[in-house]
Amino acid sequence: MEGKTVAQIREAIARGEWRKPTSGLAPGYTQANVVILPKEYAFDFLLFCARNEKPCPVIDVSEPGVVSPPVAGPGADIRIHVPKYRVYRKGEPAGEADDIRGLYTPDMVTFLLGCSFTFEQDLLDNGIPVRHIELDRNVPMYVTNRECRPAGAFAGPMVVSMRPIPADLVEKAAAVTKPYRKAHGAPIHAGDPAVLGIRDVMKVDFGDPPEIRPGEVPVFWACGVTPQMALRRAKPEIVITHAPGHMFITDIRDKDLAES
Amino acid sequence: MEGKTVAQIREAIARGEWRKPTSGLAPGYTQANVVILPKEYAFDFLLFCARNEKPCPVIDVSEPGVVSPPVAGPGADIRIHVPKYRVYRKGEPAGEADDIRGLYTPDMVTFLLGCSFTFEQDLLDNGIPVRHIELDRNVPMYVTNRECRPAGAFAGPMVVSMRPIPADLVEKAAAVTKPYRKAHGAPIHAGDPAVLGIRDVMKVDFGDPPEIRPGEVPVFWACGVTPQMALRRAKPEIVITHAPGHMFITDIRDKDLAES
Repeated sequence: MEGKTVAQIREAIARGEWRKPTSGLAPGYTQANVVILPKEYAFDFLLFCARNEKPCPVIDVSEPGVVSPPVAGPGADIRIHVPKYRVYRKGEPAGEADDIRGLYTPDMVTFLLGCSFTFEQDLLDNGIPVRHIELDRNVPMYVTNRECRPAGAFAGPMVVSMRPIPADLVEKAAAVTKPYRKAHGAPIHAGDPAVLGIRDVMKVDFGDPPEIRPGEVPVFWACGVTPQMALRRAKPEIVITHAPGHMFITDIRDKDLAES
Repeated sequence: MEGKTVAQIREAIARGEWRKPTSGLAPGYTQANVVILPKEYAFDFLLFCARNEKPCPVIDVSEPGVVSPPVAGPGADIRIHVPKYRVYRKGEPAGEADDIRGLYTPDMVTFLLGCSFTFEQDLLDNGIPVRHIELDRNVPMYVTNRECRPAGAFAGPMVVSMRPIPADLVEKAAAVTKPYRKAHGAPIHAGDPAVLGIRDVMKVDFGDPPEIRPGEVPVFWACGVTPQMALRRAKPEIVITHAPGHMFITDIRDKDLAES
């Protein structure tokens, strides 16, 4: 996919030529979490996001039946331009799909939520190591003891991702990521995992276990798995999301997602 | 009202002892614009706010039928704790009220939106003059040539407020106000009003005319009148707002509304 435009990559995805995770595709362009649900739940879910901006930063929302994200992908079709989807019925997994044209109905609302992958290149550019990229693993994620502010049927704990950072670079990592408010922004905690109710940082709830080296501090950012947990608890008749790692590639440049 | 707590001021308002503008009441506490509308419109209006965060910063939203703003005033009753309300029916003014218990129905959703008055004390504390306070006038406001991103039935131009600032303090004024993202944040423009489609800065669309002194630059911030114009265009059966200047006093401290 090297050298291809975002539009060309989306076309390749629609033709079934890319069914893998999108990490590394279209470098420099923001990738987004996808949540598609019936309009009946849209106000409560948008309110949940507004009340919990750190874990649930809204990049774009499409009105019911609108398949092109107006800000993040006006030329895209959200039903075919994600490499793999997951379907949930009443909060329970109900299979995966490559194409959701048969499931999408005109009353459905699409949410695109930010993802911390957006700021990782900026961390690297600033000389801050990103361990799970070095090791080619998924980022470690944990369920915390912090409850989100509920909204309607949506409620649940905040989930965090963790990156081990050398102690003398923790402040810099916070400064680099802070402007990325739409991609979880600054860390919510650095140091003792017990503060977040994490008993053993080596035992992840999602992703791969970390490797923390001497002199490194575990640094925790709010994570996009948070809204997924709230969605499962709310149990709408149907919710369609991206499959983990198989994100929607937006037209928005990572750098433009940061606020000056 | 000097020396009274926010709760005591609200009680006085509910007893009818204060029917005037709230400017200067409960110094240090954030005052908010109030919008109350039927749930049927709530998703589109919240989406309009999310798409236009600068003019429409959401401080708090109450679920249908919930009369206490959960974040901004858990002990308050939005039906009696605003000194004066305005009622709109199908987008047209339909009178004022002191108490909306007879109009409020269980399907109504309450929005509290930020107001630039929040950062004015911080400007003053930083040695930046605020002319309309000096002159005891209302802030000058203008309709601009910038269209908001529409959402459902909600659409309209961005409205701005203007403060003349000495040229050498413009950057400082921007830096002081930027962290107040929930109160319109940094200016959207400083200098030539024509850039915003304002032909004559002495002719305001709302508020009082400005007094711009030699060496001062007109500085424009997004303004909370923006959502009011969008509400009038959307024409819901009923909308209840605060009467201009008669704001809801929140439990949130101005300083806490700024982001560190």
